[in-house]
Amino acid sequence: MGEIRKEPFAHLLRKKERIIRVAAQGEPADLVLKNADYLNVFTNRLCHADIAVAEGVIVGIGCYTGRQELDCTGLTVLPGFIDGHIHLESALVSPAEFARAVVPHGTTTIVADPHEIANVMGCDGIQYILEATKGLPLSVRVMLPSCVPATPLDESGAELDYAAIEPFYAHPRVQGLAEMMDFVGVVQAAHAPLEKLTAAALHQKRVDGHAPGLSDGALCAYIAAGVSSDHECTNREEALRKLELGQCIMIREGTAAHNLEALVSLLSPQYDGRCILCTDDKHPNDLLHKGHIDYILRQAVALGADPICAVKAASFHAAQHFGLEDEGAIAPGYRANLVLVEDLKEFAVQKVYRDGVLTAENGKALPFPLPEISPTLIRRSHDTFRVGALTAESFVLTEPRPLIGMLKGEIITEDLGLAHGIEPQSDILKIAVVERHHNTGHIGIGYLKGYGLKAGAVATSISHDSHNIIVVGTNEQDMADAVNRVTALRGGIVVLSGGKSLAEVPLAVAGIMSEETLEQVNDRLEAAKALAFRLGVTPGVDPFMTLSFMALPVIPALRITTQGVFDVTKQQYWKKT
Amino acid sequence: MGEIRKEPFAHLLRKKERIIRVAAQGEPADLVLKNADYLNVFTNRLCHADIAVAEGVIVGIGCYTGRQELDCTGLTVLPGFIDGHIHLESALVSPAEFARAVVPHGTTTIVADPHEIANVMGCDGIQYILEATKGLPLSVRVMLPSCVPATPLDESGAELDYAAIEPFYAHPRVQGLAEMMDFVGVVQAAHAPLEKLTAAALHQKRVDGHAPGLSDGALCAYIAAGVSSDHECTNREEALRKLELGQCIMIREGTAAHNLEALVSLLSPQYDGRCILCTDDKHPNDLLHKGHIDYILRQAVALGADPICAVKAASFHAAQHFGLEDEGAIAPGYRANLVLVEDLKEFAVQKVYRDGVLTAENGKALPFPLPEISPTLIRRSHDTFRVGALTAESFVLTEPRPLIGMLKGEIITEDLGLAHGIEPQSDILKIAVVERHHNTGHIGIGYLKGYGLKAGAVATSISHDSHNIIVVGTNEQDMADAVNRVTALRGGIVVLSGGKSLAEVPLAVAGIMSEETLEQVNDRLEAAKALAFRLGVTPGVDPFMTLSFMALPVIPALRITTQGVFDVTKQQYWKKT
Repeated sequence: MGEIRKEPFAHLLRKKERIIRVAAQGEPADLVLKNADYLNVFTNRLCHADIAVAEGVIVGIGCYTGRQELDCTGLTVLPGFIDGHIHLESALVSPAEFARAVVPHGTTTIVADPHEIANVMGCDGIQYILEATKGLPLSVRVMLPSCVPATPLDESGAELDYAAIEPFYAHPRVQGLAEMMDFVGVVQAAHAPLEKLTAAALHQKRVDGHAPGLSDGALCAYIAAGVSSDHECTNREEALRKLELGQCIMIREGTAAHNLEALVSLLSPQYDGRCILCTDDKHPNDLLHKGHIDYILRQAVALGADPICAVKAASFHAAQHFGLEDEGAIAPGYRANLVLVEDLKEFAVQKVYRDGVLTAENGKALPFPLPEISPTLIRRSHDTFRVGALTAESFVLTEPRPLIGMLKGEIITEDLGLAHGIEPQSDILKIAVVERHHNTGHIGIGYLKGYGLKAGAVATSISHDSHNIIVVGTNEQDMADAVNRVTALRGGIVVLSGGKSLAEVPLAVAGIMSEETLEQVNDRLEAAKALAFRLGVTPGVDPFMTLSFMALPVIPALRITTQGVFDVTKQQYWKKT
Repeated sequence: MGEIRKEPFAHLLRKKERIIRVAAQGEPADLVLKNADYLNVFTNRLCHADIAVAEGVIVGIGCYTGRQELDCTGLTVLPGFIDGHIHLESALVSPAEFARAVVPHGTTTIVADPHEIANVMGCDGIQYILEATKGLPLSVRVMLPSCVPATPLDESGAELDYAAIEPFYAHPRVQGLAEMMDFVGVVQAAHAPLEKLTAAALHQKRVDGHAPGLSDGALCAYIAAGVSSDHECTNREEALRKLELGQCIMIREGTAAHNLEALVSLLSPQYDGRCILCTDDKHPNDLLHKGHIDYILRQAVALGADPICAVKAASFHAAQHFGLEDEGAIAPGYRANLVLVEDLKEFAVQKVYRDGVLTAENGKALPFPLPEISPTLIRRSHDTFRVGALTAESFVLTEPRPLIGMLKGEIITEDLGLAHGIEPQSDILKIAVVERHHNTGHIGIGYLKGYGLKAGAVATSISHDSHNIIVVGTNEQDMADAVNRVTALRGGIVVLSGGKSLAEVPLAVAGIMSEETLEQVNDRLEAAKALAFRLGVTPGVDPFMTLSFMALPVIPALRITTQGVFDVTKQQYWKKT
C-alpha cells in the first residue's frame, strides 16, 4: 500500500510475472472472490464470475482457485468508493482515525485538499498530511491548496504562492491543484492564480474548481483557464451548464452542504460519465452515524438515481478524472479495491478490500499500523499558537460597532446596524477574532445577534479559513479566559462561564485536529454542544460550526476578521464615519 | 502546432491571460464559428452556439465576436477525428503526403506505430517518423514499436529491446508502447515483452494490444500485464469479452482488415465509451478514393450506428484513451481541432481547423511547410540496403521444396506438399526472400501456387514485417534481375520480364516509402498492378500486398523467410526428411 510509482523496475517485473502466472491459471491466486455478482463499469451491468487477486491486483475474471477463497453468493462486489473532494481536517481527527471511520463504509480512496492545515502551517501542513496518510488502509490522494490565505483579507499562518507548492507536484500521491476558489481572480486574469494554473498545466495535473453560480463568459474563462471540475453546483441547471462546458460535476453531499437532491437526476446514463461524488466536509457525528460515500449512494438510489450510474460516479468516473488509471473498475490489472455490499439499495457494506487486503468487515476497520510522522513535523503541528495572554481589556470597546445578524440554518448573515454594548437579554453578544499565528496583537471586535448565549463565552480555533481564534461572549472576562484556554490547549473548542472552563474539545494538531479517537472527539463535541445550548445558544444553530463560518470574509453580509468587521457586500471594513 | 509540453512558464502564462480575456468577452476572438450546431460529447447531443477560438484553443461557447467570423448555419461542427492506430508507412508516402491526404477528411490526430520503418532502421526509424511528422497540420502521436523484429524468425534491420526505446518515452508526442503482438510471450511471462511492459508502466504510458482470438485465462493474463486495448477483434462476442475485461476496443476498418460491420453494434450508448476507431493500414488507392475516419463514420452510420456514439469513438474516446486531455471535445480549454461537416450521415467535410488554423477546405489541404528532417537521418533512410548483386544461380535449387498455396482473398496459405521445379503452366512459381539488411547472403527459397504469373518476376522490398526483398518468378534470371533492380532503386516494387523492368514503384525511404506525391505513387502502383495482371497474376490477388504477407511467419500454414520455408502450424522450418 505504499508509493507505487517508485517501485523499481526489477520489482515491478517480478510482480508482473506472478500476476501473469496467476491470471493464466498457472498458480493459485492470493484471494478469489468466488461466485461474485460484480458491477462491470465497462458494460454497465452486473456480471457473474470469480474474481482472482494476486499481488494486490485483480488478475482474472472467470473461474479461479486461490489460497484464500470467499464465497460471495448473495453479495454484490463493487469497485472501492472514491470521495472526489474532501477536507480531511473537518473530521477533527487524525487521517488515521478518519480512515478507521470511512473504510468500513467502503471508501478506498479519497482526494483530499489540506486547505485547513495549510492555512495554519503552510507547506508543513501539506507535508504533515502526506506523512499522516502514508500507508493507511485508505488511499489518500492530495490536491495542493490553491488559495492560502483564502482571501487577501485573511491573516493566515502562511501564504503559499505557486513556487511554494511547486515541489509537491513530484509526490506520487499529489494529483493536482485543489479547488480554485479565487474564481474572481482567474476571470480577471490576476497574476497569482494564473501562475498556479500555469504550473499545474505544465505538470499536466488536474485543477479542481469552486465557482458557485459562475456563468456565461466568466464561466468559459474560468474553464478555459484550466479548471476542470466543480463541486459547488446547487441546482441542475447550473450543473448542466458546467457539464456541457466540459467540467466534471462533483455532486456534494457532506455535513455542511447538501446538493444531492438537487443534482441526483444527473446520475443517469446520459450524464453520469461526467459526475463524481464528494463530501467536501464530514464532521464527527455525521461520520459516525451516517457513513460516507455509501450514505450518498443510499440516498441517491432512494431519490431515484440509477444504481449503476451512481456507483460509477462513486468509483470509475472519479478515478478517471484524477488519472487513477488502475482504480475504479473490476477488471484485470486494476487494484483490488473491492467493496462487498448486500444490495444496490441499502449498500450495506460487509467487507472491504484495499489492494487485495481485507481492511474492514461488518462495519469495523481491521487494525492497521499508524503512519510515522517526522518528529519535527509533530512538534511543529503542536506549536502553532503565537499569541500572548489576553485580558478583559483586550476586548473592551469605547465606540459602537456593527451588529452581525446570524440567521438560523444559514451561514449568510445580515447587517443589523450598530450596537453599543453587550446586552445578553436582547441577544446582543460581543464577537471577536484574535490573530494567533504571528503574534500581531490584531483583534477584530464586533457584535453578534442570533447566537443566543446567555452566560459565559465560547471560543474555538476553528475559524474559516485562517483558523485564528474566534470567540463570542456575554462578557469580556469570560471571552479573554476562553481565548487563553484555547491557547493553553494549543487549539480547541472551549465553553466557559464565570472563569470556569465547562467543556473542552482539545485540538492540539495545528489547532484544528484532535489526537483522540473519533468517538472520543464526538463525545466531547456533543457534551460541549449540550453545554453551549444550556448556556443559551439558540436551538438550530450549530454552536461551533456556525461560529467558525462567521470569520469567512467571502459570504455576505458582514463577517468578523482580525482587522474588524468586514462588509462583504461593499467589500470594505467597517470604519467609523 | 509545436511541442506543447515544453512551452516555458512565462509563455503559457501569457497565453492563459489572453485566453481568459477573450473568453470573458473582454477582447475579440481570433476566430468565431457563428451559429454552430456542434456535437457536445459531454451531454451527448447537438448544441447551438458560437464557438470562440483564441491562441489555438476553444475559449468560449456562447455569443462571441471575432476578428474572423464564419457563419456555420447549416453545418455541423465536430471534434477533429482521431485514428487510434495506424502504420503510416503503409500509405507508401511521406507523413507529410499522408497528412495532405487525410486532413481534408477531418482527421486532426493520428496515433502512429512506426513498426515498419523501425524494422528497417531501428531507433533511427522512430526518430525519422518523429521528425517527419513535426509541425504537420495533422497531430501525429507515436506509440513505440513493441515487437522489432516481429518474431524471433525474422531477420530484420534492427532488434529493439526495452532499453533501446527507453529514451523515446520522454518525447512529448510519444503516448506509449504500440501493439504488443507477442501475446504468446506475454502470457508465458517471457522476459523480453515483460521488460517492455514494465518500462511502459513505470513511465505511466499506455500499452496497446494485438491479440486476435485470445480468451479466458490467457486473455486475463495479457490484460493484467498492462495491455489496455485491442484492434484485432473480428466478431462482436470477442470484442465484448475484451471490453468487459477492461480493454478499449479499436474498431478497425482499413485497407487490409475490415471489422466495422462485425463490430458496428458496439457504437451504441451502452458500449461506445470503450470504443475507438482505427484503420491500422491505409494504402494509396484507398486514401485517395475512400477517405479516412470520415469513411468509417459514413459506413458506420449506414450500418445503423448511432451517429453521436460513432463520432465520440472517432474523437473523445480516442483522446481519453491516449491521455490527450485537451482533444476530442468542443468546450473551453480544448484545442480548436474542428471539423465542419454537412450532416451526420454522409460526413462530407467542408472545412477543417487544427489548433484554430484552417488546414483544409472543400476536400483540399491548405499548403503547409514540410518538416525538416536531419540530413543524417535522410541519408540513413536512403541507405538501408546491404545486399550484393544476385545471379540466376542464387535462386537455383537442387532439391524439392514445399509448395505454398495462396488462397484468393485470404492471407492464410495452405501446405501443398513438395514441388520439384518451376512450372508456370501449372502455376508453380519460385518464391524467395532475400535478406537485405546485413548482407548475410541468406536467401530462403520455396515454391508458390495461386499467384498466376506466367512470365517474368515480381519483387518488392515491402515484405512483412522485416521488409527484406521478396520475389516471385517464372525463372531464376528474372528473379535475380528484379531483386537487383529493387536494390538499385534502394527499395521499391519491380515488375520485370525478360530482363526488362516493365513497371516500378521506387520506395527509396527505408525501402518502404516513396518521396513522390500520393497521386504519383498511386499511379505507379496501379500501372505496376496492371502490368502484373497482364503477366498473368490471378485476378483477385493483390500482386504486391498479398505477396508482402507471404513473408510474415505468424500466419498459417506456410511462409517463406530468409531461412527458408516455415511451417507456422508446426512452428518449424521445413527440412529435408
